[in-house]
Amino acid sequence: MLVVMKKDASEADVARVCRAVSEMGLMPHPIPGQTRVAIGITGNLTPVDPQRLAMLPGVVDIIRVTKPYKLTSREMQPEDTVVRVNGVEIGGEGITVIAGPCSVESADQTIDTARIVKELGADMLRGGAYKPRSSPYSFQGLGPPGLKILERARRETNLPVVSEVMDVESFDLVEASVDVIQIGARNMQNYSLLRRAGRSPKPVLLKRGMSATLEEFLLAAEYIMAEGNRQVVLCERGIRAFSDYSRYTLDISIVPQIKKMSHLPIIVDPSHAVGRRDLVIPMARAAIAAGADGVIVEVHPNPACALSDGPQALTPPMFAELMDDLRTIAHAVRRGEKVAT
Amino acid sequence: MLVVMKKDASEADVARVCRAVSEMGLMPHPIPGQTRVAIGITGNLTPVDPQRLAMLPGVVDIIRVTKPYKLTSREMQPEDTVVRVNGVEIGGEGITVIAGPCSVESADQTIDTARIVKELGADMLRGGAYKPRSSPYSFQGLGPPGLKILERARRETNLPVVSEVMDVESFDLVEASVDVIQIGARNMQNYSLLRRAGRSPKPVLLKRGMSATLEEFLLAAEYIMAEGNRQVVLCERGIRAFSDYSRYTLDISIVPQIKKMSHLPIIVDPSHAVGRRDLVIPMARAAIAAGADGVIVEVHPNPACALSDGPQALTPPMFAELMDDLRTIAHAVRRGEKVAT
Amino acid sequence: MLVVMKKDASEADVARVCRAVSEMGLMPHPIPGQTRVAIGITGNLTPVDPQRLAMLPGVVDIIRVTKPYKLTSREMQPEDTVVRVNGVEIGGEGITVIAGPCSVESADQTIDTARIVKELGADMLRGGAYKPRSSPYSFQGLGPPGLKILERARRETNLPVVSEVMDVESFDLVEASVDVIQIGARNMQNYSLLRRAGRSPKPVLLKRGMSATLEEFLLAAEYIMAEGNRQVVLCERGIRAFSDYSRYTLDISIVPQIKKMSHLPIIVDPSHAVGRRDLVIPMARAAIAAGADGVIVEVHPNPACALSDGPQALTPPMFAELMDDLRTIAHAVRRGEKVAT
Amino acid sequence: MLVVMKKDASEADVARVCRAVSEMGLMPHPIPGQTRVAIGITGNLTPVDPQRLAMLPGVVDIIRVTKPYKLTSREMQPEDTVVRVNGVEIGGEGITVIAGPCSVESADQTIDTARIVKELGADMLRGGAYKPRSSPYSFQGLGPPGLKILERARRETNLPVVSEVMDVESFDLVEASVDVIQIGARNMQNYSLLRRAGRSPKPVLLKRGMSATLEEFLLAAEYIMAEGNRQVVLCERGIRAFSDYSRYTLDISIVPQIKKMSHLPIIVDPSHAVGRRDLVIPMARAAIAAGADGVIVEVHPNPACALSDGPQALTPPMFAELMDDLRTIAHAVRRGEKVAT
Repeated sequence: MLVVMKKDASEADVARVCRAVSEMGLMPHPIPGQTRVAIGITGNLTPVDPQRLAMLPGVVDIIRVTKPYKLTSREMQPEDTVVRVNGVEIGGEGITVIAGPCSVESADQTIDTARIVKELGADMLRGGAYKPRSSPYSFQGLGPPGLKILERARRETNLPVVSEVMDVESFDLVEASVDVIQIGARNMQNYSLLRRAGRSPKPVLLKRGMSATLEEFLLAAEYIMAEGNRQVVLCERGIRAFSDYSRYTLDISIVPQIKKMSHLPIIVDPSHAVGRRDLVIPMARAAIAAGADGVIVEVHPNPACALSDGPQALTPPMFAELMDDLRTIAHAVRRGEKVAT
Repeated sequence: MLVVMKKDASEADVARVCRAVSEMGLMPHPIPGQTRVAIGITGNLTPVDPQRLAMLPGVVDIIRVTKPYKLTSREMQPEDTVVRVNGVEIGGEGITVIAGPCSVESADQTIDTARIVKELGADMLRGGAYKPRSSPYSFQGLGPPGLKILERARRETNLPVVSEVMDVESFDLVEASVDVIQIGARNMQNYSLLRRAGRSPKPVLLKRGMSATLEEFLLAAEYIMAEGNRQVVLCERGIRAFSDYSRYTLDISIVPQIKKMSHLPIIVDPSHAVGRRDLVIPMARAAIAAGADGVIVEVHPNPACALSDGPQALTPPMFAELMDDLRTIAHAVRRGEKVAT
Repeated sequence: MLVVMKKDASEADVARVCRAVSEMGLMPHPIPGQTRVAIGITGNLTPVDPQRLAMLPGVVDIIRVTKPYKLTSREMQPEDTVVRVNGVEIGGEGITVIAGPCSVESADQTIDTARIVKELGADMLRGGAYKPRSSPYSFQGLGPPGLKILERARRETNLPVVSEVMDVESFDLVEASVDVIQIGARNMQNYSLLRRAGRSPKPVLLKRGMSATLEEFLLAAEYIMAEGNRQVVLCERGIRAFSDYSRYTLDISIVPQIKKMSHLPIIVDPSHAVGRRDLVIPMARAAIAAGADGVIVEVHPNPACALSDGPQALTPPMFAELMDDLRTIAHAVRRGEKVAT
Repeated sequence: MLVVMKKDASEADVARVCRAVSEMGLMPHPIPGQTRVAIGITGNLTPVDPQRLAMLPGVVDIIRVTKPYKLTSREMQPEDTVVRVNGVEIGGEGITVIAGPCSVESADQTIDTARIVKELGADMLRGGAYKPRSSPYSFQGLGPPGLKILERARRETNLPVVSEVMDVESFDLVEASVDVIQIGARNMQNYSLLRRAGRSPKPVLLKRGMSATLEEFLLAAEYIMAEGNRQVVLCERGIRAFSDYSRYTLDISIVPQIKKMSHLPIIVDPSHAVGRRDLVIPMARAAIAAGADGVIVEVHPNPACALSDGPQALTPPMFAELMDDLRTIAHAVRRGEKVAT
């Protein structure tokens, strides 16, 4: 349920409504908008009597939100959420390009890659210190030393860093080192991890599970937001269908659909979806053309030597070509000039 | 198997190879290229001894094509196939926009729509006189009178017409009236229909079945080409996955993959894939950004009154917006100026 | 809509209702039950005013059937349909086993197989004279000579014969030769073929399309029934999912669901679903345990030499084992003693 | 890689091979069989030179295991794993029935249900103290008090208890209270949780993720086994396909396939797969007919009042019917007399 306040409602009016909501055993979430405040209400296991709230000073309307997701829904917050991290925006006017190696393999490989993507126009650096791998016998990431390398790469390039966290135990470490905490597709319904992320002061990049419906995806974000963290970036990375030519099927149509249902930014990861570098560039272009707020792609100075997912990493010249293409596509869909700077 | 001829091979050389192939109980398919002729060989149920062919005059190489599709493969024909119909190209420099109502409902509705889309820049008119419907109790199309209406619409707008054929019995009628014969997703593996289309002098627009793999899709085109018709346009229209927010899942990544594997043009039908008009524009943009040779979309002057698929038809103002967007995206991906004229 | 007649309604009462329905521009389908007659109404593109019918003599109730399928629905006909062909029942007390080679390859192979499966207890013979093949270069069946071989196999074993028809052109030929006409998965939405089958006096075995929903499956049967042919047997043969160890995913849970929604018999084809003979026996057992009315399996005296689908054909000793297993499972689920005779 | 020892190899021979393996930087896993010992080797990121091992005393053969799963593979351990817990076997001669409420809601509800299922022949009690729910606003389980209730239910009925663990933080608590630790479908690739379970002395019931391939499923079990816990029970619970009549698609054919590839027991959860109680009994029968080692089903004395998943819980009379059916099916597939006692 959403309580819409009058444009000229005072802070005391808002506080009064929140108190009334709390007294009903529910949780109020004030959402300041440009012209007015709305107050989201969660926890209503039992039907709520809205009349009591409707009569409070400053209240103009009560809207029943029937979708199971609330804080993530555009009904509750009409304005786009813009996530800001060290001067970089996700979900704002321009598009955002996050690039880097699949895994942090060494200081040299990571810092080289960071410099290359920075120079070619990337907005953020990606790189895994902890890697979720299907097999227990595959390279699992460098762990804490990998985080240190990422910190160094940030110092040297000034690019904010996105890296995946795999469990609650290592959360503090990852949280301390990175700028945006990534939760991977396999953990999209790891609710303990989502709740921990909800208590972090840092933005969260939440990847869609490979068999998650749109509703399950938004509800996973809802777990994070219900704990208080409003800075969530969604990421489509391919679903499991019957495809036999690419690893997953990139479900680009979820991008405009998410834009309708939710105020959260959504980016696309074509690298993991298709699993082959020759499809990455056209699919990244398609993502931006469909309205995505950005892409996250894998780049490796020498893909043949990558310890994980080498076949899907772009070479630096391919990444340069990608950046050129994305600039023109972004311009074509009126996503401002930001990328071109 | 593919016999590659020398650049300066004579017509007599080509004829001699074809004769030798026929004597082996196989079928030769000469494929003239810009610089040389290649001869595809099909029907080789038993392993073929290439030595006999390799020694004939004018032969430079013999290539074993291991994929089950041959005539459709880019290995057999490296150059793009460009389908030409009444001055309109599909698969050439520019992109091609095919638009019109889902069903031909009346002369007024069809001709009005044709004029509108023509004026806004469409290259071809679509419209169903025969409609495949899940339920026997749904509107099944006007049939032959619908074909007459399409002929009139062509006369009045000069737009070439694409319309679906549903069975061999009505093939002659449809073939006589339309410029491009469409085979729908439900008939993608109706082999009798594919063979009949293969004996038509008119181009065929072949839609991907909703659960067809890439190989099955190309093999369906192969059925048409093996009968002699080389003018095949492929069309992605959404696959069946677990999606709950759109009717099908538009598998845009098949576009760049088809471009690698095959020389045939491929276009995208976002209207049937998503089933809702608000997703059509972003997905059409994404298709062109991914490299599609065009789109086919439904437009209805008054979607609320459409007898079939009204919710997915664009209104004329939305189609105008789509055309603007596609022009800029096509330009961004270097698809020439054709659309802008 | 369904008009339910009183138990003691006369034939004249039924005829009067049918006449009234026809005058409304709709089509009446009288369905005689054990205790009373019901009259299904189809063709109601416009809402029907039931009051006129409710007041006719002998009418006890009018039921709106909201599902798009009507004649196939259990609401319209509560009693199970039992299809009878030359003394063999499908959908009756016992289970029905249909067995034979994938393709008719020669008289010897077919008649040998027919004798073997007859001796081991099969109720019907299967075998393809026309084969739908993904590739135009694969063996496509013997055609008319194959039908003659099937006729001979029936004469020599007295087993009724099931064989696939692929198009309207060859329908008359197949219809004249076989006892049950099979429509394959790829043709489940070939509506012209369904309509032609609906005008046949012979029973139809309708396979589920590999991406057909339950509703689409029943609507395909509805196409046949709406033309007048009530003898339809449904067949689950595997759907397309992401499975990488079997060709399709056998959706056994559709069996009890179909039993709820429809009065039509449903059998299961494990051979095509799994594509490997070692999984055929356990999946056939599972089908019967879930309530299927029978199975259709491929048997070949020498699978290694089969011209199509050899890897999924059971050897005669495996078929003997299957028959033993199915007898005990059928008994366990109270499907009578028929199979054991 | 697998080192097969001679039948009369001594313990010292085995120890010597293990030492050699360790010296190569790899990990040896001795697997005692009925007639001989085999030694699995894991960790071989680099190709291993088997010659050095082949020449050691007591070694009869070296088998390269090409599948990425090793400890779970039947190649490495030909004999079935039988998991034993408080006198109950899973994977032995008979089938095992695990039953109980979806969630532990109260002591009365849980203990009543436990007594009912015990009396009707269940072998183990299931019940969730921690519940993974798609929405943060749904009932999430009683937590520690729920575990206490399960302990009481075990004391009063002597049934071993299976319950789900959702994260590493609560692992110790759950492990101390239950007999078999369940890892749910959403956590099948929560590798930190799998590793922790691998260090538990208690058996683990591992559910298949809704989009997990067979290989991913076995690799998840491999994560547990690689840490030393060999007592893993696999559980198929439905995959995500396009089904619109049941929640998931129960992939029963994975049961016989797992039996071929792995020595681990596999059971089936029809309740979560179909989501509706009327389909649970036929699908449980199908699972046993296909060769499953047991089923896990939800039973609630009063499903209408269940706090979670009420629509899929069997009533006690339905559970009695299920037990009768499973006894006869188990007998039909020669799974001994155990269930009938």
